[in-house]
Amino acid sequence: MEIANRDFYNADAMIESSSASPPFVSTLAIVGVGLLGGSIAAAAKGRGLAGRVVGIGRDAARLEQARQRGLVDVASTEIDAAAEADLVVVCTPVNRIAADVRKVAAVCRAGTLITDVGSVKGSICRELASGLPAGIEFVGSHPLAGSEKSGFEATDPNLLEGRVCIVTIDESASVAARVRLREFWSRLGARVIEMSPEAHDHVLAETSHLPHLAAAVLASTLQDEHRPLAANGFRDSTRIAAGDANLWAAIFLANADEVEQALERYEKVWREFRQVLKTRDATALRDLLAKARDSRLKLDHRGA
Amino acid sequence: MEIANRDFYNADAMIESSSASPPFVSTLAIVGVGLLGGSIAAAAKGRGLAGRVVGIGRDAARLEQARQRGLVDVASTEIDAAAEADLVVVCTPVNRIAADVRKVAAVCRAGTLITDVGSVKGSICRELASGLPAGIEFVGSHPLAGSEKSGFEATDPNLLEGRVCIVTIDESASVAARVRLREFWSRLGARVIEMSPEAHDHVLAETSHLPHLAAAVLASTLQDEHRPLAANGFRDSTRIAAGDANLWAAIFLANADEVEQALERYEKVWREFRQVLKTRDATALRDLLAKARDSRLKLDHRGA
Repeated sequence: MEIANRDFYNADAMIESSSASPPFVSTLAIVGVGLLGGSIAAAAKGRGLAGRVVGIGRDAARLEQARQRGLVDVASTEIDAAAEADLVVVCTPVNRIAADVRKVAAVCRAGTLITDVGSVKGSICRELASGLPAGIEFVGSHPLAGSEKSGFEATDPNLLEGRVCIVTIDESASVAARVRLREFWSRLGARVIEMSPEAHDHVLAETSHLPHLAAAVLASTLQDEHRPLAANGFRDSTRIAAGDANLWAAIFLANADEVEQALERYEKVWREFRQVLKTRDATALRDLLAKARDSRLKLDHRGA
Repeated sequence: MEIANRDFYNADAMIESSSASPPFVSTLAIVGVGLLGGSIAAAAKGRGLAGRVVGIGRDAARLEQARQRGLVDVASTEIDAAAEADLVVVCTPVNRIAADVRKVAAVCRAGTLITDVGSVKGSICRELASGLPAGIEFVGSHPLAGSEKSGFEATDPNLLEGRVCIVTIDESASVAARVRLREFWSRLGARVIEMSPEAHDHVLAETSHLPHLAAAVLASTLQDEHRPLAANGFRDSTRIAAGDANLWAAIFLANADEVEQALERYEKVWREFRQVLKTRDATALRDLLAKARDSRLKLDHRGA
């Protein structure tokens, strides 16, 4: 009866608007309602992408606050709450993702697609390439929309707008699952790029993990008595060093081999600068700085 | 007759407003009307701090554009145009400042105060500690309001608002000159800190020159094919690397000894991170990251 009524209203409404078509995701479950999980929930609700959003986490009080803010429709500390989901996004720290995906997979029905938002992909995708219940698929994701902030209080429904989201090419996953996941992120406003988990980790070691380490070193080098004279340049260069230490330690260790190689490339360039500074070679120093400048300016001109 | 009229209007206006009191600077000359020079000019005019602003530079066409924008009242490529100034701010690259100050000093009248905005102070202040014409004083300044941008097009009359401006404690300058200069920067909205030129160079090597070099190394490390995956963290960490290569080469070389010492301190911390990463020591890595995070968070909490 309820279904019949709903169909009736839908048929009527469709004359006026396409918004009454069935949502892309019937029930979306978010495991870990922090900055990224909360923003995905808010964006999915705001864009009418999900019929219902279930938020699952460990802290009942905070989850309830997230629910009262309207980020999720249902808040639960029980993984069973994901049972009805057709799409699950696991937004826990990288060293917990694989285990959390298995827990969710154990309670979901066949046909459910599970993804994550972890900053490292190789170890997670390898771990999840086999052993999931029949009919449950995992495809990795990484929306490049992290921040030094954390917690659902910093949630932004437009966080993914215009950002790159990497979707991994997993041998074990069906093309249909990957297509569905690409569509999900696209509808949240992200620009999807598909890569193998290994390629992801190789590139992100350079574009994300290396700058985080450099920022942390810079922040730690600053002596207390010099802090009042650290202006905008220092602030911007170290902003990401304010990120959660546990999350980042896990990221570095999950991608340690690639990170070490990126650090070696940085050290090689560092030594070039060191050498021209040591010899007080103005021309060579200017050339190195000009090369760095060109590289930085290309970032702004790529139309991102 | 004109003077009498002006006095009459002033006397009248003072009943209504204190803005009719004589300006703090009668004629302000800016040598080098770029981002910083143009912003100082705009701020001085906007706040009624200068009766007249003279802009002096090398490119007549660009100076005329700056004049048409209202940044300066008079535009000239001749240093003689500073003859009437009671305050001159030299905003040329650090390797030209000392020579430009001497050129200005040669055409100014006794009582004129000359300052600069150079990112390095020791070499400039030492060079100018003697040999200026009688009655002409130089006191060094460094407003911490630089940017990766350049040119008067980026001028912002509020650029100095809330920023720190260092005024050097020069043995050769009178207390009256330093007091006057502090007052000038304060009225432009800056928070003035007095330091010896040597202390300035020691601290800025760590808070400004080191982060610039680290940003340049990071930007140069980025491989072309990885650029599309450089997100906000990478962008912020390398923003300052887009600064002018000639200007920055001159800064590094003018402060090379202090910069090398700052680089050594950075390398020491870098090796600590390298070591815990190499041994995959999660606890030690988390502790290092937590220390870096605390240092960065203190920057935001100092109420600047």
